[in-house]
Amino acid sequence: MQLSDLLTPALVIDEGRMMRNIDRMRRRLSDLRVGFRPHVKTSKSIDVSRRLMASARGPITVSTLEEAERFYAHGVTDILYAVGIVPGKLTRVADLRARGCDLMVILDSVDAARAVSTYCAAHRCEIPALIEIDSDDHRGGVKPEGPALVPIAAAMTDGATIRGVMTHAGGSYACRSTDAIAAMAEQERAAVVRAAARLREAGFEAPIVSVGSTPTATFARDLTGVTEVRAGVFVFQDLVMAGLGVCAVDDIALSVLVSIIGHQPEKGWVITDGGWMATSRDRGTARQRVDQGYGIVLDVDGRVLEGFVMSDANQEHGVISRRDAGMIDWASFPVGAQLRILPNHACATAAQHADYHVVNGSRDVIARWERFGGW
Amino acid sequence: MQLSDLLTPALVIDEGRMMRNIDRMRRRLSDLRVGFRPHVKTSKSIDVSRRLMASARGPITVSTLEEAERFYAHGVTDILYAVGIVPGKLTRVADLRARGCDLMVILDSVDAARAVSTYCAAHRCEIPALIEIDSDDHRGGVKPEGPALVPIAAAMTDGATIRGVMTHAGGSYACRSTDAIAAMAEQERAAVVRAAARLREAGFEAPIVSVGSTPTATFARDLTGVTEVRAGVFVFQDLVMAGLGVCAVDDIALSVLVSIIGHQPEKGWVITDGGWMATSRDRGTARQRVDQGYGIVLDVDGRVLEGFVMSDANQEHGVISRRDAGMIDWASFPVGAQLRILPNHACATAAQHADYHVVNGSRDVIARWERFGGW
Repeated sequence: MQLSDLLTPALVIDEGRMMRNIDRMRRRLSDLRVGFRPHVKTSKSIDVSRRLMASARGPITVSTLEEAERFYAHGVTDILYAVGIVPGKLTRVADLRARGCDLMVILDSVDAARAVSTYCAAHRCEIPALIEIDSDDHRGGVKPEGPALVPIAAAMTDGATIRGVMTHAGGSYACRSTDAIAAMAEQERAAVVRAAARLREAGFEAPIVSVGSTPTATFARDLTGVTEVRAGVFVFQDLVMAGLGVCAVDDIALSVLVSIIGHQPEKGWVITDGGWMATSRDRGTARQRVDQGYGIVLDVDGRVLEGFVMSDANQEHGVISRRDAGMIDWASFPVGAQLRILPNHACATAAQHADYHVVNGSRDVIARWERFGGW
Repeated sequence: MQLSDLLTPALVIDEGRMMRNIDRMRRRLSDLRVGFRPHVKTSKSIDVSRRLMASARGPITVSTLEEAERFYAHGVTDILYAVGIVPGKLTRVADLRARGCDLMVILDSVDAARAVSTYCAAHRCEIPALIEIDSDDHRGGVKPEGPALVPIAAAMTDGATIRGVMTHAGGSYACRSTDAIAAMAEQERAAVVRAAARLREAGFEAPIVSVGSTPTATFARDLTGVTEVRAGVFVFQDLVMAGLGVCAVDDIALSVLVSIIGHQPEKGWVITDGGWMATSRDRGTARQRVDQGYGIVLDVDGRVLEGFVMSDANQEHGVISRRDAGMIDWASFPVGAQLRILPNHACATAAQHADYHVVNGSRDVIARWERFGGW
């Protein structure tokens, strides 16, 4: 099968690029002498994640219990569910653990710690948790020096066991230089290592000290005290990562295959059948130095069409135009011809599709890999 | 089952609001003495669309061939596929027609008309099409007075039959007043009626004269010469429509149920488990007079929490904050409690989910309706 046989829009992975991205991250983390717990929320695919994991049993990081259940069904047993747990989800967590999955949760409040403890006491089960640390004022977590940390650990009783600490320096996405990302990586490391030290001083064990974002994992200079790195988007990379200097545009392994459905010569628009339903509404590069619109345009072979950008999107219509609003050689864009669009944000674009079509530097489609969604 | 039994995030329809939205649009189109070909791309649900359609056989408008196939499998036979056709999709169109579905396509170029004609001649089949008209410089289509219109009709030979013309005044989404929307509706009407007249003068039949967007359908004062209206988002309404004056906030029938997972008191943030994966990245109100962030916040019973907004989103994390950055009564937002978020754009938010949980003004979940995605 060839790309030209696919009905568009369709999601395409270049496997060679993906494997190079994986190898690069593995080498970095090996050089930094730190463990790797890849985040599978980017691909939500067994086939992709198999190529990421240190072993068939994991470890992995997930963003939904659906991911935990799907990956456990495929033999993965060492899983961190890295979104703050709520009481209503504990039954599902406990069920998975009872079936043999070593699923950990995260929490950042005494209330959540008490809820887990109460559940474990009532159901005579164990639920291990990491305490979420706020390293960058970006999202959730408690401050490493704050008053809440030790009381949270103290509130974990009965089967609610503390396994350590974790943080995510999502603020690294807003950095303006690789030096700033390296500084953010050190801030991320220092926060979580300090939190682990305070817990140990208070008499708690904290065997796991977990950090992770693709930018900080890429530019961290030292991860002393950290036991594992979670990173996800590096597997595909995307235009936001390229804008941060984390990767080159040629490293981006994910693209959306689209077909040209019409021309608007007066407006300088090539219209395609790939709208935001196929690319997502993510416009992460709008806040970067170079706004890449809805994506950089490639020919069907994956070569960048210099000067073109996907400038607008309706639900099932994409607009491709020249950045300089210059003349277009319309004969180069016949109705029915295919193009490929590199995404702003791989996690968001992949989430719009049910499967990946795999190529490796040519038009031959060598595999179809399923992905899943939901919670 | 109650809303509190649902694992979050989850998509909720208020059926009473939805039925009022449907009845309102039906009455308007009846008053305007025009047919109704509802667009089912918003809900992609058999259960929702059954409540929309004039009969079990349709007519409907779809945005993907997947929708056409799914609805045909449920007995709908009168279908317009309203995205410009490309040659590679003609086999799928012809297969559906051969099975008894009266599927129409659209096109806006001589090249596409020739491709359909060639296919029909080679396969001895009929494929009816509408010519897409550009009424507002918004997307695709040919100008009603332009030189391309009649040659496109002339290029339709063999089984490629012309059924008429269609347009979509998507520019109505950018209008700043209801008078401006009414003027856009007249512009939309005039464009397509003029195009039909030119085709008839040139000796072609144009029985179908099709317009449609929810804003123009809501404020059109006269639709003389138009045979049918396509509109879709009205079924749920959303914050973009409310910002345009098309509906009230209390008309919005779609919301995302989320759980509170943590607090960041220093930042004034309530953190939820509903991120952009649950709401979509659509920020359509950012261009309107009132930016509603990622959505207006409701309590679990559907009452607006005045002064609160979903201000930021990560993949599986939502941030709720006060618009005035004032004090928050944290005890009102306990970890584990549920909230509901009204969407910017119902089509985009619904697309992030596999099913709808149906309520009718209370916390009782009275049904679960499936929806589908893909192309």
